[in-house]
Amino acid sequence: MILRDPVHGLVSFEGAAESVVPRLMDTPEVQRLRRVRALGVASLAFPGAEHSRFAHAVGAAHVMTRFLARVSPLAAALGPGQGLEPEDAQDALAAALVHDVGHGPLSHLFEEVMPAMPAHETWTSAIVLDPSTGLHRALKSIDPAMPERVERLVHGDHRVRYLARAVSGTFDVDRCDYLLRDSYMTGTRYGLYDLDWLLRSLRLEPSRGGARLAVDGSKGLPAVEGYFLARLFIYQQVYFHKATRGAEAVLRAIFRRLADILGDGRVPAGTPQPLVAFARGEKVSVGAYLDLDDNVLWCAVDAWRADPDPVLSSLAEEIQARVLFKTASLDDFDPADDAALEAGLREVVKKRGFEPRYYASLDVAEVLPYERPTSPDEALRVVYERRPPRALERASFLIARLLGAPFVRRRLVFPASVRDDVDALLGSFRPTR
Amino acid sequence: MILRDPVHGLVSFEGAAESVVPRLMDTPEVQRLRRVRALGVASLAFPGAEHSRFAHAVGAAHVMTRFLARVSPLAAALGPGQGLEPEDAQDALAAALVHDVGHGPLSHLFEEVMPAMPAHETWTSAIVLDPSTGLHRALKSIDPAMPERVERLVHGDHRVRYLARAVSGTFDVDRCDYLLRDSYMTGTRYGLYDLDWLLRSLRLEPSRGGARLAVDGSKGLPAVEGYFLARLFIYQQVYFHKATRGAEAVLRAIFRRLADILGDGRVPAGTPQPLVAFARGEKVSVGAYLDLDDNVLWCAVDAWRADPDPVLSSLAEEIQARVLFKTASLDDFDPADDAALEAGLREVVKKRGFEPRYYASLDVAEVLPYERPTSPDEALRVVYERRPPRALERASFLIARLLGAPFVRRRLVFPASVRDDVDALLGSFRPTR
Amino acid sequence: MILRDPVHGLVSFEGAAESVVPRLMDTPEVQRLRRVRALGVASLAFPGAEHSRFAHAVGAAHVMTRFLARVSPLAAALGPGQGLEPEDAQDALAAALVHDVGHGPLSHLFEEVMPAMPAHETWTSAIVLDPSTGLHRALKSIDPAMPERVERLVHGDHRVRYLARAVSGTFDVDRCDYLLRDSYMTGTRYGLYDLDWLLRSLRLEPSRGGARLAVDGSKGLPAVEGYFLARLFIYQQVYFHKATRGAEAVLRAIFRRLADILGDGRVPAGTPQPLVAFARGEKVSVGAYLDLDDNVLWCAVDAWRADPDPVLSSLAEEIQARVLFKTASLDDFDPADDAALEAGLREVVKKRGFEPRYYASLDVAEVLPYERPTSPDEALRVVYERRPPRALERASFLIARLLGAPFVRRRLVFPASVRDDVDALLGSFRPTR
Amino acid sequence: MILRDPVHGLVSFEGAAESVVPRLMDTPEVQRLRRVRALGVASLAFPGAEHSRFAHAVGAAHVMTRFLARVSPLAAALGPGQGLEPEDAQDALAAALVHDVGHGPLSHLFEEVMPAMPAHETWTSAIVLDPSTGLHRALKSIDPAMPERVERLVHGDHRVRYLARAVSGTFDVDRCDYLLRDSYMTGTRYGLYDLDWLLRSLRLEPSRGGARLAVDGSKGLPAVEGYFLARLFIYQQVYFHKATRGAEAVLRAIFRRLADILGDGRVPAGTPQPLVAFARGEKVSVGAYLDLDDNVLWCAVDAWRADPDPVLSSLAEEIQARVLFKTASLDDFDPADDAALEAGLREVVKKRGFEPRYYASLDVAEVLPYERPTSPDEALRVVYERRPPRALERASFLIARLLGAPFVRRRLVFPASVRDDVDALLGSFRPTR
Repeated sequence: MILRDPVHGLVSFEGAAESVVPRLMDTPEVQRLRRVRALGVASLAFPGAEHSRFAHAVGAAHVMTRFLARVSPLAAALGPGQGLEPEDAQDALAAALVHDVGHGPLSHLFEEVMPAMPAHETWTSAIVLDPSTGLHRALKSIDPAMPERVERLVHGDHRVRYLARAVSGTFDVDRCDYLLRDSYMTGTRYGLYDLDWLLRSLRLEPSRGGARLAVDGSKGLPAVEGYFLARLFIYQQVYFHKATRGAEAVLRAIFRRLADILGDGRVPAGTPQPLVAFARGEKVSVGAYLDLDDNVLWCAVDAWRADPDPVLSSLAEEIQARVLFKTASLDDFDPADDAALEAGLREVVKKRGFEPRYYASLDVAEVLPYERPTSPDEALRVVYERRPPRALERASFLIARLLGAPFVRRRLVFPASVRDDVDALLGSFRPTR
Repeated sequence: MILRDPVHGLVSFEGAAESVVPRLMDTPEVQRLRRVRALGVASLAFPGAEHSRFAHAVGAAHVMTRFLARVSPLAAALGPGQGLEPEDAQDALAAALVHDVGHGPLSHLFEEVMPAMPAHETWTSAIVLDPSTGLHRALKSIDPAMPERVERLVHGDHRVRYLARAVSGTFDVDRCDYLLRDSYMTGTRYGLYDLDWLLRSLRLEPSRGGARLAVDGSKGLPAVEGYFLARLFIYQQVYFHKATRGAEAVLRAIFRRLADILGDGRVPAGTPQPLVAFARGEKVSVGAYLDLDDNVLWCAVDAWRADPDPVLSSLAEEIQARVLFKTASLDDFDPADDAALEAGLREVVKKRGFEPRYYASLDVAEVLPYERPTSPDEALRVVYERRPPRALERASFLIARLLGAPFVRRRLVFPASVRDDVDALLGSFRPTR
Repeated sequence: MILRDPVHGLVSFEGAAESVVPRLMDTPEVQRLRRVRALGVASLAFPGAEHSRFAHAVGAAHVMTRFLARVSPLAAALGPGQGLEPEDAQDALAAALVHDVGHGPLSHLFEEVMPAMPAHETWTSAIVLDPSTGLHRALKSIDPAMPERVERLVHGDHRVRYLARAVSGTFDVDRCDYLLRDSYMTGTRYGLYDLDWLLRSLRLEPSRGGARLAVDGSKGLPAVEGYFLARLFIYQQVYFHKATRGAEAVLRAIFRRLADILGDGRVPAGTPQPLVAFARGEKVSVGAYLDLDDNVLWCAVDAWRADPDPVLSSLAEEIQARVLFKTASLDDFDPADDAALEAGLREVVKKRGFEPRYYASLDVAEVLPYERPTSPDEALRVVYERRPPRALERASFLIARLLGAPFVRRRLVFPASVRDDVDALLGSFRPTR
Repeated sequence: MILRDPVHGLVSFEGAAESVVPRLMDTPEVQRLRRVRALGVASLAFPGAEHSRFAHAVGAAHVMTRFLARVSPLAAALGPGQGLEPEDAQDALAAALVHDVGHGPLSHLFEEVMPAMPAHETWTSAIVLDPSTGLHRALKSIDPAMPERVERLVHGDHRVRYLARAVSGTFDVDRCDYLLRDSYMTGTRYGLYDLDWLLRSLRLEPSRGGARLAVDGSKGLPAVEGYFLARLFIYQQVYFHKATRGAEAVLRAIFRRLADILGDGRVPAGTPQPLVAFARGEKVSVGAYLDLDDNVLWCAVDAWRADPDPVLSSLAEEIQARVLFKTASLDDFDPADDAALEAGLREVVKKRGFEPRYYASLDVAEVLPYERPTSPDEALRVVYERRPPRALERASFLIARLLGAPFVRRRLVFPASVRDDVDALLGSFRPTR
């Protein structure tokens, strides 16, 4: 199978192990990912960012083929019995392709407001392990033990440790693809680190308990630094963008209102059955869950526009016409004032006739550009030809400066019509300088 | 307004005339284009090609800002009274943005099987002119005569002739954007002609009845040639791709079957009301038409999977799981045999238990890489500093070779399970060499 | 060895066979190519086009590594004894790297005016075969028969026919690299065909006398078409650019004048010894020839600015300050008039006090976009999964249209100061339309 | 004038003020920059990096046209009398084009070893002010006061302060171009910050003493951060690359040896006259200095290969065949040990028969990724719509982390043949961890 891809150019799955990819790609559960956007409502801020989780899944599998092509000869060179088995390559490719198969539409927004709803990782496990899914059957037909192995590998557990880390770790094929894809599609470009050079710089460092992933210190540092910077940039620019957050807040309000209505015993027309079940804390079957996708959800939003509940219907109308909540940065204020500011916002919103439960929030977005590794497996080691190895945060000038410092964006979120009141509220607090 | 775009990079609408763009962009009718994919089912062949008509509309408006920036000083230099008026620029930007606003989901497939359905161009006019739409009101608020002017301009009629051609002509902003966007998103790259250089090469040639668009013969030919080659390539590679055509054939079969069922008086559950009306030849209001989008349509397909009609339900199931019709090229056979081959295919398909009306077709895709201009306005003239002007097809070595020659792809289309029978059928005909 | 390259990104020579590349790269004869610009004086028209033949040689070797990576498994799959031997790969890589090693500075301009000077291909053979060169010794140290094999391969002769074609043929690694590199560096972009896809589309077609190179008809045609279009575009835009031709004409005049002076028995100060020998028809040793490079030549031009001969000194002054000859297109005139126009130009130039031998010329630049293959080996075959193979010119719509038609640019070339007289001259001839 | 450029694509100088660029470009002094490579010997490490200072000068002038196009309307909007005058634009474009006109070949290496030689900035002033140069005459013909104004502007002094900073400052058009060009040509890519977005993010902040350059805090931070990161990356990767430094050390040794020989009263054959004068501390005229370029210098190196002095001839032979000095990183050692290590290296080298003066050195390369601004003019302010302005190092998470921290690379430099001895030397010192 050869595909064209906007991000990677030519994508091919042609070797023996790689035949697992087209096989799994043809299952309904993987095809369903075509109907789930990778970035949720971020396309309301970045019109080009309309790519699906399917395109990302294929991209992640492609990065895995390249990772394996790089690492296999390194593994073989470590000595007899150290090489990757064909089975390992199959596991890795399968896990790369299906790692997101449990994603629902806008899943993290769901999960926040419907606590009874299992996290998407749980659904991924369920879909891989459930004998009723086409994906499970396809995996099983390759090797009866494969569903279990792939399920564990998706969660970072495999006999080959560096393979587990490449599926789920600091430097994994999921991130490798989404950093490139999200930045390419949003047009932000900042995420465009050098994947070719990064892969070429990989090394395997022998260690007790199996080889560990490392990077060549004389060639690879800028590629690794670029990777972490790309991650920071895309968080700053895309995931934490004020319009992205404003749109997410509208959707969160819709789901919260829906849950409240359902809690009161009424089911708004057009509500998909699994949402009802989640709100009621009822169990949802794998099959029913898989019926949820972006199309289904947006059809429901479309239907809710006619709902008798004024909050639900007006919010549904607004998100469809891209009327988003506005935001005000709190960067100039002391975090100690956040709670008071949020309380102030709730009052302001209430005074203008909006229910604060849906229309007022404090939004704190936070990411660690580089997290101090908590286990030797997580750490990316830097190796040299004529010098002893070092930890990445000691070898890299830039990473050393990013270590442990969180990037934070704090904002008030509210309807556009209360902007002036919010400005007045902020004016009554003292900025930090 | 500044936007990031994967194709054009930085997109801005900041001048006085350009303020029309954000204003119209915020109307529900333009926002609806976010829910209509630009390439229909081509993403089943090219996973990255998931971009919306909204992104394309913004891109077309962006190309228009660049076209105006290039052409305005040229117009002013032609002499007093020849310059573009602010109103002209507004008209042009508005028309570029809304030229596709009447597109329904997968509209040309619809139009083919539901003859009572108006073409998307008709809907565009209706939406611009209908006083009930937000778009109409926004245009009217700028200038009461603007809806009418923009509607005519979208169809290529305006007092400034070259502006009309830039909205709808051989070389227009619609094509300028979609050639780049479709090739960027599919990852085919062949459409990446040089827009910067093309715009820079534009000239205005004075003529009776108003200036005409021309291109600088000493600098601009390769850019113009690249533009027409890009168009040929994207037809060859994307629009005429066998998987694109196979997917379209499945959808065409679904709509044909739906129309037949509706004709028999039954309405399959989940069928959106406007489809019923179209099938019955009933009038559909602008508002009802606008409720149709990709989400609504795919929700209907989702619902039809459970329909009692076995043809409708199985085709719906298949398209959702990406089980497409297969194709066999007829390039090696005499076109005179096409009818016999199609008849043969119908028999083969019937023998295998499929209804040929839905499961067998001859697919002839054809495009003219460069059509001989039918009017002086359509012709792109080539001008020189020290030589007399020439027609493009005389000035360009490549265009001369492409003039009037159609590129054609003829194929049989059928379910995968009859492949061997089709091979046998083809084996019974004599190839042309 | 890993290198960064503006055109190919990451370039690596790390396998066993590839070790031949760094080994040969370190010889003085290959390093000398750093001092010879790939495009001669074209950088006077395209300021970015300052790349050396060394960068191109490395690029050609890189394309060969990719060609081998693609073709080796195809060869092995043809059957026992059909695979490529390690020795074949070494030969191919060496030939790709050294194919241009005989190039002198601005060699084709030299060859035209100094008929006693051997062509650069002859020098390449001499350098590879001469026991005194570091290159010869390096090749011999790998395999005593290697200098002879590589010399023959550079000229298209090898036991593996498709390998010979990949070094010197319609589709060879030399062209593959220079089309990309020249278009990248000039900023013209038109040469950016899709190398990844082209390589991926290659097939080997079994035939008597050994396998032949072919291309997959269902995937590869646009890549092959793009390759030939890229070639046409770069000829049109770069090699045939009026400023490139005007600069070359100045240099040709300089060398012609130099040869005339040397013929009269005087050696202008600063003239490198090998030029004197060439002008006198004397034999030049390989070592002496290798001392010629761009630096040496431009130092001579620098010195000639002070020569007592007014033609030589003024032309040298002018080329260094980028005062180029001008051109007038003859595209609007009947080729039958060319001789009369050239005669007219000589008169015009003479009347203004310039010697026509140096200051007036008719410049006819011609290229065949696609030459009809003269032998089965040269032909690129197109193969299909379910259809019989075809010749490329029958399989491709575009190539069929380009077959056998030459692209021609005819111009008069003259000093800027006679421009008006030339315009008057042209005005006295009848244009063809 | 329209040009193609590998970095910026289409480059045009077509407005009234911009006509100054083609006019100055045609002077011999600017054309001479075609014969001076921008990156000196870095092309020995990065084969693609063969671009000239001429291409860079044109690129810098292009960035200035874009800077002016962005800033002019902002200046006009500040109020009456605040707009840029046509004269200002001409000054700025001229200064951008000629800012490097005084660069000699490999100038900083020269300057280090020949203390009597004026710095290239001094030569730039001299060339602009000297009535004998074509550049001076061309400037004067535009405006008699222009040579003086441009000379002062090149050094950062102009009545419009932000214009002076754009020619010579933290964020200037020189850097804007070379970061892109050097990273593009070396193939490192890391320098590819987003120039479009950076320019679009610029603002003018009113202040006493004239407006100051600022950046939009809600849009522009990542572009500014990218700019400073690009600078850090290209220092790390290219300017501080071990092969670049190894090549520079060979050249420095050549010039040092040459100076010593000249100091002893002998002039090696082929030595250009200005070098002799510099070594003797004699005054060199502007005309004589301008005769120096890369060609002249490499011709001299070519000649020195035959010099009787064994150090000079062998080093000349080696640099031409790319035999470079090797380096050993001192990153693992305490800087306090540097002097002892250098002394150890000198001994080691001496023991092997090399003169340490030419063959042994400690190479300390250092750059500040972001220098704390020393004057309000130098500081880049960050402005917001609804928030008070901030200093860049307070507004940006990343810049805050880079502030004041130097990036340093310490290395021993020596001939390849003493590598083992150097390893032994290093083994006798204790690493810092």
